[in-house]
Amino acid sequence: MARVLLPWSDLAVPAGVTAVHYDGKTAPPRELDDIEFYVLPYDSGSAPRELIPHLPALKAVQTLNAGYDDILPLLPEGVTLANGRGLHDLSVAEHTLALILAAQRDMPRWFRQQPSGSWSREHTRSLADCRVLLVGYGSIAKAIERYLHAGEAVTVPVASKARDGVHGIDELPSLLPDADIVVLVLPDTPRTRGIIGEQELAALPDGALVVNVGRGSAIDVDALTAEVSKGRIRAALDVLNPEPFPADHPLWTQDGVIITRHVAGGSDSFYPRAKRLVEQQLARFAQGEPLANLVR
Amino acid sequence: MARVLLPWSDLAVPAGVTAVHYDGKTAPPRELDDIEFYVLPYDSGSAPRELIPHLPALKAVQTLNAGYDDILPLLPEGVTLANGRGLHDLSVAEHTLALILAAQRDMPRWFRQQPSGSWSREHTRSLADCRVLLVGYGSIAKAIERYLHAGEAVTVPVASKARDGVHGIDELPSLLPDADIVVLVLPDTPRTRGIIGEQELAALPDGALVVNVGRGSAIDVDALTAEVSKGRIRAALDVLNPEPFPADHPLWTQDGVIITRHVAGGSDSFYPRAKRLVEQQLARFAQGEPLANLVR
Repeated sequence: MARVLLPWSDLAVPAGVTAVHYDGKTAPPRELDDIEFYVLPYDSGSAPRELIPHLPALKAVQTLNAGYDDILPLLPEGVTLANGRGLHDLSVAEHTLALILAAQRDMPRWFRQQPSGSWSREHTRSLADCRVLLVGYGSIAKAIERYLHAGEAVTVPVASKARDGVHGIDELPSLLPDADIVVLVLPDTPRTRGIIGEQELAALPDGALVVNVGRGSAIDVDALTAEVSKGRIRAALDVLNPEPFPADHPLWTQDGVIITRHVAGGSDSFYPRAKRLVEQQLARFAQGEPLANLVR
Repeated sequence: MARVLLPWSDLAVPAGVTAVHYDGKTAPPRELDDIEFYVLPYDSGSAPRELIPHLPALKAVQTLNAGYDDILPLLPEGVTLANGRGLHDLSVAEHTLALILAAQRDMPRWFRQQPSGSWSREHTRSLADCRVLLVGYGSIAKAIERYLHAGEAVTVPVASKARDGVHGIDELPSLLPDADIVVLVLPDTPRTRGIIGEQELAALPDGALVVNVGRGSAIDVDALTAEVSKGRIRAALDVLNPEPFPADHPLWTQDGVIITRHVAGGSDSFYPRAKRLVEQQLARFAQGEPLANLVR
């Protein structure tokens, strides 16, 4: 009877598998010597991954994050690792739309004025008809794009290399002057760091909106602060560089800047998708089949 | 040469037609005795419609609003009237999504905390997987639905009468207990007034979100205030009853309540769509064809 360590107690567990429950918030269970498959509790600090070296029978680890750099050093040789690729896509896409629509439809203003009860109305921008660059055209950007198309915006996909219907990142200088909105969905790599700097921001038309839901390092934050403080462009940011972002940084209080705190991936939509993945992986594990989303 | 009175000077005007410009904000031009077709300036108060009886050669009026009750009493016999049906659909749908996503993803909280620069993160609700009732299933609700499907929400259309794939309004009592979000897109009629009252609100599950982008009269505002003040349900409202809504009403400052001020239809997306309609109507007028969207 294979024993598996799971973060949730309401999962469908296949025959031949016994589940042990560990949510990462309380102390781990005692008898862990025969745990073969370990699904890391989500968003529970470093304790869950630090348990990995203490599981002598371990064959496979499932993380529910896309990233796994912090797990590799703890993973014994011969133990496979599967990641949570795609589980946050829709949550991030949804938050991206929340940011874009809040910026275009002046939500911060309405919310600020709400307690006063004043009935002042103003015309706003729209998302419809906007030309939106999607820089980093992976599964998250495609989920964002489905929303944008529903809203009759025009999308312009940009990836590291040009391919059919997708612009290469080297075309960015010629694309920026016609962009109403630029959405960055880039990982943190040497090639993406500071990819939006002084020159790129200067190339944007007046009133353009820069949205970042990838990694904060993609934007030169000093250049962005300079440009938004002139009132020339706007920004809606879920990620910053560094994080936590210094509380006294002037970007927090600039007009035309919306900041949320790396919360795009953290919504209810994650859980049903994560649980579906874990149940599918448990079935594969019980059948002796290779796991999906293997990264090692 | 037919003379037409237009609110914009950048429209394509067909051969055989001379355009006179009147934007509704400044005094009307003097020589109006031979104006045959009058496109009312949008959102410019009552002056534009009050000009109608002073145009002796008038044959047709185009309003850019969907409603036209305020125009009928001023319209001489024999003058036809076309309305702006559909021109605001996408703008209203966009604002509806802005409201729903702001409520689900806790935008008011992030915006309120932003000036402090604190890096406190919290998990939020999601729109994905939510069961959304669309009460009043016309063209606006269908535009909202396209957005909701892109976000993997489940939509439940409700119209005055049941038809294929659409529930009848009489089924509402059985639909409310399973609704995560109820979106009202209803006109103000004797049948829709107070359609969401104490009983309907009580039928909603804890935490449900009531969204109103139709007319304020659909909701019994006292019943809503009582239910949200208990913290049992939430609301996101672009319309209220009455409007302007009294500045000292307790609804303005309830937790879990978002209020914008009948601004859903007023965004940039209106203009290209309105101008396309006017150009098509001018072409029909010049050809002696009947106008589209005729309401009288």
